[in-house]
Amino acid sequence: MNRVIKLSDVAKAAGVSQGTASNAFNRPEIVRPEVREKVEAAARELGYAGPDPKGRLLRAGKVNAIGVATTETLDYFFADPYARAVMASISAACDERGAGISLISAANDEKLSWNIQSAIVDGFVLFCIEGGERLVELSRERRLPFVALQLDASDETISVIGVDDFEGARTAARHIGALGHRDVAVVSLELVDDRIGPVAPGEVEAAFYSGTRNRIQGYLAGLAEFGVDPVAVPVFETQNNARTVGAALEHFYAEGRRPTALLCMSDRSALIALDWLRQRGLSVPGDVSVIGFDGVAEGEVSEPPLTTVAQPIDVMGRMAAEMILDGIDSPRRERFEVELLVRQSTAAPRTG
Amino acid sequence: MNRVIKLSDVAKAAGVSQGTASNAFNRPEIVRPEVREKVEAAARELGYAGPDPKGRLLRAGKVNAIGVATTETLDYFFADPYARAVMASISAACDERGAGISLISAANDEKLSWNIQSAIVDGFVLFCIEGGERLVELSRERRLPFVALQLDASDETISVIGVDDFEGARTAARHIGALGHRDVAVVSLELVDDRIGPVAPGEVEAAFYSGTRNRIQGYLAGLAEFGVDPVAVPVFETQNNARTVGAALEHFYAEGRRPTALLCMSDRSALIALDWLRQRGLSVPGDVSVIGFDGVAEGEVSEPPLTTVAQPIDVMGRMAAEMILDGIDSPRRERFEVELLVRQSTAAPRTG
Repeated sequence: MNRVIKLSDVAKAAGVSQGTASNAFNRPEIVRPEVREKVEAAARELGYAGPDPKGRLLRAGKVNAIGVATTETLDYFFADPYARAVMASISAACDERGAGISLISAANDEKLSWNIQSAIVDGFVLFCIEGGERLVELSRERRLPFVALQLDASDETISVIGVDDFEGARTAARHIGALGHRDVAVVSLELVDDRIGPVAPGEVEAAFYSGTRNRIQGYLAGLAEFGVDPVAVPVFETQNNARTVGAALEHFYAEGRRPTALLCMSDRSALIALDWLRQRGLSVPGDVSVIGFDGVAEGEVSEPPLTTVAQPIDVMGRMAAEMILDGIDSPRRERFEVELLVRQSTAAPRTG
Repeated sequence: MNRVIKLSDVAKAAGVSQGTASNAFNRPEIVRPEVREKVEAAARELGYAGPDPKGRLLRAGKVNAIGVATTETLDYFFADPYARAVMASISAACDERGAGISLISAANDEKLSWNIQSAIVDGFVLFCIEGGERLVELSRERRLPFVALQLDASDETISVIGVDDFEGARTAARHIGALGHRDVAVVSLELVDDRIGPVAPGEVEAAFYSGTRNRIQGYLAGLAEFGVDPVAVPVFETQNNARTVGAALEHFYAEGRRPTALLCMSDRSALIALDWLRQRGLSVPGDVSVIGFDGVAEGEVSEPPLTTVAQPIDVMGRMAAEMILDGIDSPRRERFEVELLVRQSTAAPRTG
């Protein structure tokens, strides 16, 4: 008989009340460590799979909320166009079920641990576009379901939802190469924490953030198909904001260099680049082509509308939310196709 | 000796553990009503001022999170430019303190109660721009601090942060009147739940949402100063989205009518109006002037940049968050000044 082990069995074996056993799983921060360990030991011994989300719906302690965690500050969720788009689709899924959302920032290491440890939620969606290993580690310790967005994880016990960063970037570079551009610069996201500046070829391989690394490698592979030497392509690491993207462009344009195309690793960077170029009297795509990555709504109405590599953000955010609200039986590995959206910010370079 | 009364004093007087006393204040939903009443009675008798936020930071039960509630669906926080701007400023205040944010939707009545009742937060910020009386009632029942944004409440026990809607709207109308416009139409927010359509003069007085009523009355008062008969000004009730703002404009332009100016009750409505007009080949401000309300960032970069009545959104959102995180000793009534930002979407009407 394969009888399902229930929370009450665990409580009995550990010699604690069912409420305490429930708290040990759902609100570990209010249970003394020695009691928690006793409950966890009993759960391991019995092979208890953890609280059943559907059961929790009916109990007073039910949360019906998703925790969404980032290593950025909280305002990222409202100020960043990509984060906003993902959150809108997570919200739509939560709205359908009357669920709430807890926003958790891990900008500060010490607070990071605490905020993840104390969040009263049914599980976590982790924004991992630039890093997220620590988020994964802390979510694991909470013993709640979690799904990592944009994490390039080799660990197959982790549920991930993402796109093929290499392929997406290669698609962007092929478009630029096919238009005839050979003098191309890359506006990169972070490769490591808190660094900006030019990236030497050897540094790409050693990047801490694999998503960024994969996109750079995709760009260089795509350009190489058109005879562009990867070592000669300038790459500048930014923090995806006006100050650091501006620094990248200052760098590229210094000493009279004039790239004919900019490969930007996010639509946000690309939109910042459009502003920067306009302010300096450079026309897009006349003087320089600009291509983004993400496919956010802001790129449809920019001046000019932005050519970009679009992710299926609506589908990805909704899937992440539903995985947490429905529970995850076994790890899911979802990698979506991206789509090149050709708008008006890219064209052939001027001849002569 | 003015010894500060501590939670431990209250617990002792009530004959309960300090943990239970703490829960009675911080998580009342998990404490039996008779126990809660005993604790509250002891607190009243001793003159206990409530949990000290700094003390709570150090205790295991500390939430360090704000609940933000709306009667809209959750995606409102990410899709609506005004909500986004307020959330960005609330986030900035939370980021400074390492606090989290729980987003709560009250779109559905039944879920509304539950989501407010079950949120594990230190208090609530209520988005009340179109209604919010039910949010106030439920927050009161939770016995947690709350502050209502944009609520026109006569009840002085409620903490509110808002702007003078009448004065703001009158400022907008005076600008339009001074430019020479006499054929003006009003794109209104909701006066009652779930209704769209033309608003008869008598309906304004009876409006359920007082913020909307005050703005309409402000517009009409401002126009009246320039000899415009309030009864002759067409007002159309929308839900602040593309479909219903489009319906308003279809209505105004039906049968060859051509207002020379549109008073829009939000920047979002005004930006939708700019799109609608552009698609029909009408130039702004050449054929028609458009003025918004709110002062969101999107209005700075629209085509043309939007003239609007700006609220100090950064200050308001931050203040609301800090009130919840610091605790509210006595009700606060904050009403901010608005500022007319004249950009390029308004001009004198064409003569002839």
